[in-house]
Amino acid sequence: MSWTLTAADLPDLARGATLLGTGGGGDPYIGQMLVARVLGDRGITILDPDDLADDLFVIPTAQMGAPTVMIEKIPAGTEPTLAMRTLEAHLGRTADATMPIECGGINSMIPLIVAAETGLPVVDADGMGRAFPELSMETFAVYGVHGSPLALAGERGETVVIDTGDDDRQMEWLARGVTIRLGGVGHIAEYAMSGADVRRTAVPRTLSMALALGRSIREAREQHRSPFEAIAETLSTTLYPEVRELFSGKVTDVERRTTEGFAKGRATVSALEAGDDSTLEIRFQNENLIAVRDGQLVAIVPDLICVTDIESGEPITTEGLRYGQRVRVLGISTPEMMRTPEALAAFGPRAFGLTEEFVPVESGELARAGSA
Amino acid sequence: MSWTLTAADLPDLARGATLLGTGGGGDPYIGQMLVARVLGDRGITILDPDDLADDLFVIPTAQMGAPTVMIEKIPAGTEPTLAMRTLEAHLGRTADATMPIECGGINSMIPLIVAAETGLPVVDADGMGRAFPELSMETFAVYGVHGSPLALAGERGETVVIDTGDDDRQMEWLARGVTIRLGGVGHIAEYAMSGADVRRTAVPRTLSMALALGRSIREAREQHRSPFEAIAETLSTTLYPEVRELFSGKVTDVERRTTEGFAKGRATVSALEAGDDSTLEIRFQNENLIAVRDGQLVAIVPDLICVTDIESGEPITTEGLRYGQRVRVLGISTPEMMRTPEALAAFGPRAFGLTEEFVPVESGELARAGSA
Repeated sequence: MSWTLTAADLPDLARGATLLGTGGGGDPYIGQMLVARVLGDRGITILDPDDLADDLFVIPTAQMGAPTVMIEKIPAGTEPTLAMRTLEAHLGRTADATMPIECGGINSMIPLIVAAETGLPVVDADGMGRAFPELSMETFAVYGVHGSPLALAGERGETVVIDTGDDDRQMEWLARGVTIRLGGVGHIAEYAMSGADVRRTAVPRTLSMALALGRSIREAREQHRSPFEAIAETLSTTLYPEVRELFSGKVTDVERRTTEGFAKGRATVSALEAGDDSTLEIRFQNENLIAVRDGQLVAIVPDLICVTDIESGEPITTEGLRYGQRVRVLGISTPEMMRTPEALAAFGPRAFGLTEEFVPVESGELARAGSA
Repeated sequence: MSWTLTAADLPDLARGATLLGTGGGGDPYIGQMLVARVLGDRGITILDPDDLADDLFVIPTAQMGAPTVMIEKIPAGTEPTLAMRTLEAHLGRTADATMPIECGGINSMIPLIVAAETGLPVVDADGMGRAFPELSMETFAVYGVHGSPLALAGERGETVVIDTGDDDRQMEWLARGVTIRLGGVGHIAEYAMSGADVRRTAVPRTLSMALALGRSIREAREQHRSPFEAIAETLSTTLYPEVRELFSGKVTDVERRTTEGFAKGRATVSALEAGDDSTLEIRFQNENLIAVRDGQLVAIVPDLICVTDIESGEPITTEGLRYGQRVRVLGISTPEMMRTPEALAAFGPRAFGLTEEFVPVESGELARAGSA
């Protein structure tokens, strides 16, 4: 069912989207400010995927770049709409709605900026079901909708249209090169598709899930309940039902560099109790990719690895990781459509150069979140 | 007056274009083979700029990339036409003719490939009057026609359309980034303009001049005359009347690296006579930029610095420079429209990071070519 999102929803949505960003996806708090500024006291119509007409024309919009740069370089706010208009002109067709390509991080907000500016509705679905670092890592592409042609807009009004046919990796490669030369951040419109394509290829209701997650964490805090119980409870009725606490401890090492347009690195979390020398090591490329506890794999992409404040449950991004932080690390299952062989080929461990095989987070033996 | 170019003209045109390439511009011999293959025994109509209807629609075509890569990576031949078709689709207008953006090097040949494939005529003019390393270094831009939108095609059929408004340097920067990610070579269509624009902003008759230069060098050799006299004689009736012999000697040092999409480096030529320790040092970025004889500037960009075989007059590119070669280095004046303050701002010494001021090659005191 369609519903209306207002500026009052944005802080909860930002919190939930940061959790689904699994450490990356860019900072939604900046995007939230941009949405609020343009939206004022109006509302944005959010369309349920089941309600879409088959021939509705949807143009997803997003930001691309390294999250470490996004913090330094706040967009003017007009670029995502310029990207969409550029793609419309190229295709000779006007969008009926926009949609996130990624429900984690700032890309939960970019389509809302476009909606606030243009009055278009936003489809409650995305193509990552979380955040991923590359434009080719989309369920859209896995299930047959290609990203190209892609339109890219820069902060000085530059536009670039890239057409690589069915080759989504080459599209990513060229768009990344342009983004780097635009200073590290670009805004894009890509994966134009029909309403029928959305139902076939998108992860449904991830925008409403992000909002529900963010709201449940806040309400749990206000009610002095465990935010981790609230997270598990909220997810239990979604396509992401399995939640595991992977580790709790103190961040004792962070290594991070921005290279080739990505933020890459690793973090170590060590046990709090004296005498307990167990650790969790997390490796990331924009997003958290793999979590290894005392040498044993406990969660791996595309399952979600989320670092949160040990008390408040507030999600912490890779660029927000600091020595000494007390954190709780959660593993969350991704929808089955993201775990098929085709999906794992696009955004499973090998797509990130990892040699480990995918193992569902729920097959481990760690305690269920909230039970700790 | 319009004329017809045939495959028999191509070797002379390639030779002349290599001379005008001033060390860079890419190897026209590869382009010549591609033109000959497509052209067969047909002819290409070459349009004199004075004959163009004011509203004729001209789309120039070219290759971009580092010459060192172009030698290794021979294009399929269909890319330049794909670039033109992509720009036509973007602009919603069909080209009446194509034109070189650069008369030196391989870019003398690329519009001929397009003409051979499509049957379009080629305008006898260009925007560099020689070769330059960057797309913004055009008399077109200096006199008010901007390069953007630019269409770029890759060897796997990728297309990219870049629109940077009036900012030709940003267009160059983004297109260069895409070209690097395409493996170092891309084919482009840009600086779309009217016949009236051509007359106002292009360097006229540089295609016929390149052909005449190449032919005169060959004929002088066949007639056992000095090719250098023939060069000076041919140029005397053009916009490039001043020719100076800057140095003759042996290449004793070459330093060359491909970096950021360019071939950069320097070469030293030493006197042949025992006891004469004078040298000429040439610095290049794709093209030869500056020639310094025994510490004294003798020629500088945008004037032409051409390295040729000491006997045959055959031009030698920067990537063809080898230790031990016997060479004659010529300095050639560029047309006055390339020496105005606006023109020097676009492609004078400062545009290449040189601190030296522009000094016309004919203001020096060296011997006139052919008199040595």
